[in-house]
Amino acid sequence: MAKEITPRSEDYSQWYNNLVVKADLAENSAVRGCMVIKPYGYAIWEKMQAQLDRMFKDTGHSNAYFPLFIPKSFFSREAAHVEGFAKECAVVTHYRLKNDPNGKGVVVDEDAKLEEELIVRPTSETIIWNTYKGWIQSYRDLPLLINQWANVVRWEMRTRLFLRTAEFLWQEGHTAHATREEAVEETEKIINLYADFAENYMAMPVLKGVKSENERFAGAVETYAIEALMQDGKALQAGTSHFLGQNFAKAFDVKFLDRSGKLEYVWATSWGVSTRLMGALIMAHSDDNGLVLPPKLAPLQVIIVPIYRKKEELDQISTVAEELMTMLKKAGISVKYDDRDTHKPGWKFAEYEMKGVPVRIAIGPRDLANGTAEVARRDTLEKNTLPLEGLAEKIPPLLEEIQQQIYRKALRFRDASIYTVDSYEAFREAIEKGGFVLAHWDGTTETEMKIKEETKATIRIIPTESDPEPGKCIVTGKPSPRRVVFARAY
Amino acid sequence: MAKEITPRSEDYSQWYNNLVVKADLAENSAVRGCMVIKPYGYAIWEKMQAQLDRMFKDTGHSNAYFPLFIPKSFFSREAAHVEGFAKECAVVTHYRLKNDPNGKGVVVDEDAKLEEELIVRPTSETIIWNTYKGWIQSYRDLPLLINQWANVVRWEMRTRLFLRTAEFLWQEGHTAHATREEAVEETEKIINLYADFAENYMAMPVLKGVKSENERFAGAVETYAIEALMQDGKALQAGTSHFLGQNFAKAFDVKFLDRSGKLEYVWATSWGVSTRLMGALIMAHSDDNGLVLPPKLAPLQVIIVPIYRKKEELDQISTVAEELMTMLKKAGISVKYDDRDTHKPGWKFAEYEMKGVPVRIAIGPRDLANGTAEVARRDTLEKNTLPLEGLAEKIPPLLEEIQQQIYRKALRFRDASIYTVDSYEAFREAIEKGGFVLAHWDGTTETEMKIKEETKATIRIIPTESDPEPGKCIVTGKPSPRRVVFARAY
Repeated sequence: MAKEITPRSEDYSQWYNNLVVKADLAENSAVRGCMVIKPYGYAIWEKMQAQLDRMFKDTGHSNAYFPLFIPKSFFSREAAHVEGFAKECAVVTHYRLKNDPNGKGVVVDEDAKLEEELIVRPTSETIIWNTYKGWIQSYRDLPLLINQWANVVRWEMRTRLFLRTAEFLWQEGHTAHATREEAVEETEKIINLYADFAENYMAMPVLKGVKSENERFAGAVETYAIEALMQDGKALQAGTSHFLGQNFAKAFDVKFLDRSGKLEYVWATSWGVSTRLMGALIMAHSDDNGLVLPPKLAPLQVIIVPIYRKKEELDQISTVAEELMTMLKKAGISVKYDDRDTHKPGWKFAEYEMKGVPVRIAIGPRDLANGTAEVARRDTLEKNTLPLEGLAEKIPPLLEEIQQQIYRKALRFRDASIYTVDSYEAFREAIEKGGFVLAHWDGTTETEMKIKEETKATIRIIPTESDPEPGKCIVTGKPSPRRVVFARAY
Repeated sequence: MAKEITPRSEDYSQWYNNLVVKADLAENSAVRGCMVIKPYGYAIWEKMQAQLDRMFKDTGHSNAYFPLFIPKSFFSREAAHVEGFAKECAVVTHYRLKNDPNGKGVVVDEDAKLEEELIVRPTSETIIWNTYKGWIQSYRDLPLLINQWANVVRWEMRTRLFLRTAEFLWQEGHTAHATREEAVEETEKIINLYADFAENYMAMPVLKGVKSENERFAGAVETYAIEALMQDGKALQAGTSHFLGQNFAKAFDVKFLDRSGKLEYVWATSWGVSTRLMGALIMAHSDDNGLVLPPKLAPLQVIIVPIYRKKEELDQISTVAEELMTMLKKAGISVKYDDRDTHKPGWKFAEYEMKGVPVRIAIGPRDLANGTAEVARRDTLEKNTLPLEGLAEKIPPLLEEIQQQIYRKALRFRDASIYTVDSYEAFREAIEKGGFVLAHWDGTTETEMKIKEETKATIRIIPTESDPEPGKCIVTGKPSPRRVVFARAY
């Protein structure tokens, strides 16, 4: 075997860390909390980006780019926002270094102190709404549907590759609308888009709903979220879409003349997903052999490995393999033929399993004699000997079937991990098992915090789509209009 | 007219600034020296990125991502590099803000001072070579061909949109090789790739060569560059590719076991182009009516504008226009039909000229009666009435012809602005005219600096491809192996 990782059942956290490193996805850097995204990990992120970008553009959004730095005073403009974001952040105070007078490298030049400190953006609402002020005068300038692909920094004390890093990559959408209704519609459109992406590309089922006041984005009127379940029974917030009301328009004085000639504040939304999705993708599907990637996001979908002893055997196999590769490429499939003589087939098998390549095709001398090939699926680890004749046509439906199977498996797991409880005792038991727990809650932050302290569970979402079902709070017995979704979470 | 800009002949600098803003490409932000790239400007940058990314991948490179921050001490490791880069930069000294004890917003929390300051990357050689140390052990790990798309910050005192900004977007390639020859080959391959991109996509002819020692990248053994000529006769460095020798491998102790089992330092290259190319693209081709975009980089290649008085006329025109649009889209052309009733055709014509849309098709009632349309080229401003029948098939070759014509025009201008001189007096005269001046130089930094001080001209490149032609330095009369290229530059 090429590489081994800690079994998932033994130590889930260690399994995850091992996998991220051994599958060449990312590693910690020399800078505390900042990661290096390695080429293979970045290639998966690029596939995610490309698909999301298409979806944003298909729904009328354009990309733009705003400054990395935000003047410190901007954070104080929106009262709730400053509490949430202007705390743990990277602060630029100087703009020059000079040679150390003692001759030891360089030191900060105290003469080059900034008049106002700059914050490395933790999120860009403030700088963007300060800019929108110049772009919006009339209802004709609306809606403004803009997205940015960027890096952001939040100074985290405890970091984990992809899941929580000081610097991460993300997209942040920032839209401006003439009416409340239109902004709410946009917020919901985007959370649906994220759910579509999670389910149909990441093969990861999600629950959709809104956050409790306590878990809301700092400065938002309402935060919509999608929540996925990881294989250890913990929830992971995979994307959020915020209805910001007129909060940022008021903070940055952005008004427009409406159709009736009246001056009104603009309505806003913001929404984002980040490289955290990489962590979700890894944890949702992978196993003790390594990554399991849904074909739609796999940088390499098919790997062909020759099994041979003699040079003549390799030559014969190569002819067949290259023909097959040409046909697969024509069908738009990403495929590689690994004929390196520096590694044995067994090593290669383990390597591509570790990297989650959905389909492996092995061809040996006996296959050639029989006109067959061995086709192995990464998701189920099933192997089948299939005729070479017509094999290329079978691969696209096989990839589609793998995509579906990965989703179905995750869905079965998720659905089997949803518990509906009516007492605090049953709640505590269910939370210990891991999974989503549906329970009644009285709607107060006080009760929410009590539950969090006692069980480490938080309200992941308040469902918006199911029918209301009145009941009584599991803690206080006070009336509750509907069950909400609790879980321990990343 | 919708918008007007200062004529180019009157004030070139003002013309450029006006154009960047009026064509909705970029604007200054609230943060000194940092720009906002607006959606239309960003769409052009995305076209550049997509093409360059394809070219990098076609030549075997992969993308990855390295931290935004670099520990201060890293800069001191490579002696020349620290001189060039660790000076004017953004320094992060703290990681937390707190509420102002006086109740006025937030202030830096002095308790949250970093032990070692972090520098916002001005370029990433140091952090990347520190990382490569863990990736490279043997010749089997080489070559390492990696590129990064990222933002970087260099604290510039005098900034201009796209041309010189404190924060800018770029790509930086960083490759590692087993031999000197291979690294030099990579350096040259990339400068040729950049020249190909500049000429065949940006329609901008470039001169290729190496920099003098004085103009070399800090830490490089040799810097290759492409230089383009702007319409005001000033040169613009459009891309650089550096052969770094073993400098960074030595600074970060990156060694590998070669095929013979000997431990050797790794050979390196780095190379980059930035959003500065946007400035080059604008200045190379545009005119007093606005942007002129080569079709290959135009986000919108064809605009269709209806000319009408009555609703019925518009309906009839729309039927024809939408049919035409469908056919053009099928041919892979980016096209829009602007039937807004809020703006007059004259306003729209000016607007799309300002934005550099290569082809405008106008259809009025008389055209419908005659079965024709008016086709206008942005590059030459020529208009032709053509039959609607078969029009769609004529557009792709027309776009190709426009691409070629823009290049030919820039090439004619560039070639007419190259002067060969043999005396310092003739040199001064030629430099005043603007353009590239070929002259003999004795190879010393002293003479180079004297020329720069007296004429503001710098050595743009030392040609590597033309035959050597010995002569005498125009300043000192000392021997010179070949003419070098001087110009005043951006």
